[in-house]
Amino acid sequence: MTLPRIIADADVQLAVDGETLARSIDAFLACAAACTACSSACLAEDDVARLKDCIATNDVCAAICEATATVAARLHKGSWTALQKQLEACLHASRACADECREHAAQHDHCRGCAEACERAEKAAGMLLEAIPA
Amino acid sequence: MTLPRIIADADVQLAVDGETLARSIDAFLACAAACTACSSACLAEDDVARLKDCIATNDVCAAICEATATVAARLHKGSWTALQKQLEACLHASRACADECREHAAQHDHCRGCAEACERAEKAAGMLLEAIPA
Amino acid sequence: MTLPRIIADADVQLAVDGETLARSIDAFLACAAACTACSSACLAEDDVARLKDCIATNDVCAAICEATATVAARLHKGSWTALQKQLEACLHASRACADECREHAAQHDHCRGCAEACERAEKAAGMLLEAIPA
Amino acid sequence: MTLPRIIADADVQLAVDGETLARSIDAFLACAAACTACSSACLAEDDVARLKDCIATNDVCAAICEATATVAARLHKGSWTALQKQLEACLHASRACADECREHAAQHDHCRGCAEACERAEKAAGMLLEAIPA
Repeated sequence: MTLPRIIADADVQLAVDGETLARSIDAFLACAAACTACSSACLAEDDVARLKDCIATNDVCAAICEATATVAARLHKGSWTALQKQLEACLHASRACADECREHAAQHDHCRGCAEACERAEKAAGMLLEAIPA
Repeated sequence: MTLPRIIADADVQLAVDGETLARSIDAFLACAAACTACSSACLAEDDVARLKDCIATNDVCAAICEATATVAARLHKGSWTALQKQLEACLHASRACADECREHAAQHDHCRGCAEACERAEKAAGMLLEAIPA
Repeated sequence: MTLPRIIADADVQLAVDGETLARSIDAFLACAAACTACSSACLAEDDVARLKDCIATNDVCAAICEATATVAARLHKGSWTALQKQLEACLHASRACADECREHAAQHDHCRGCAEACERAEKAAGMLLEAIPA
Repeated sequence: MTLPRIIADADVQLAVDGETLARSIDAFLACAAACTACSSACLAEDDVARLKDCIATNDVCAAICEATATVAARLHKGSWTALQKQLEACLHASRACADECREHAAQHDHCRGCAEACERAEKAAGMLLEAIPA
């Protein structure tokens, strides 16, 4: 992964190093991709009617995680509050999606995988929230 | 605009009608486009070094407004908290971007136009926040 | 709409004026929002199993139209080929989505509205493709 | 990475396995993040005026790679042409961005890292293009 090297070059001013920030951005993007793929796989299932909430939660979480990755990769002193609020949105969306996907984990592998990706995004968002300067 | 007709069909459960929700989504998208175009126009200016904060704020606001439009267009009972947090991120990002762009409004038409688009997005986010069921 | 004023300020070098370019960007964004809202409305329908292709086509079209709007709003001499290829993707995605949504137009208002938004995006993409310098 | 497991579950019908498709999606997302971070790092440099083309190319490439990742993660028989066109846009955008970033690689580590991420996205797009059924 070359992202740490790119990030490290910037003057981040968060209480985390570039490597940690890069891993967080990676967690948001991996979550967005997992949610998109899980939504698509749910849609193809025979029991799609039972998976409506899962698809809806996946799609919302994907959009929020994508924006969070972009904002975190554009760290800038004028954007602390925006980043903080965006991380809070990400924390809630990924927690809600992990909860929803976990309910279908026994039936569908894609839901189990997606729940794990959401949990990692939730943790990354929580960690970055604590690293924002007061 | 056909969006009100599409939205009206859904069971929104917000304390706003479909027409108002559609206008809000339109305000978020118009703000994202204005921020992207303003960022690109700032970059082409001779005094780009003075416009660094404006470009950075524009890019963050564009990403957040785009995600907010998507989440608002996917309204779903399981996503109230995610929508609320995303609207708060949108409110702060568009306010910060309006403030920054207004500082360059006398020199650059694109900054004046962008500040106005940001103000409309901020108002739309504030209004939807009040319409979310408790 | 303030976008024409922002765009007009830039040195576009397309064979269209800023007003026309701004209306095209607006058509791509309106299509993305319509596809997202139609996908969400389809998912909430009782006959969701019959609307699987419509949801999938909507979601693909929304992602492509969003990117096309961003690229078109960032016009830059180094990006002509990328813009051309992105417009071709947009043309095909919005045509495919218009075709799919039209099949459900009699049953669902949101599909009829979305088909119209897709047709406008397809026309805008075709027009911009002809305006790119050779 | 949980994405291969999610993708593997779907009926892909591309001439690649789920693992390869997942690695490609990862390459598009890593490229989008690298371009966004490189754009932000360029903007913070003292010689920003010399990096204008790099920033513009980065921003276009990020938007296109993000959409490509989404479309590839939503593979669906009705979307072959849209995927093909989107992959062509991705191929060109990431090649153009790799070329541009390589010119600044000696001066800026973030440009060197970004050029490598773009090259991997270009290769992934080329490989998937060959795997689309005729």
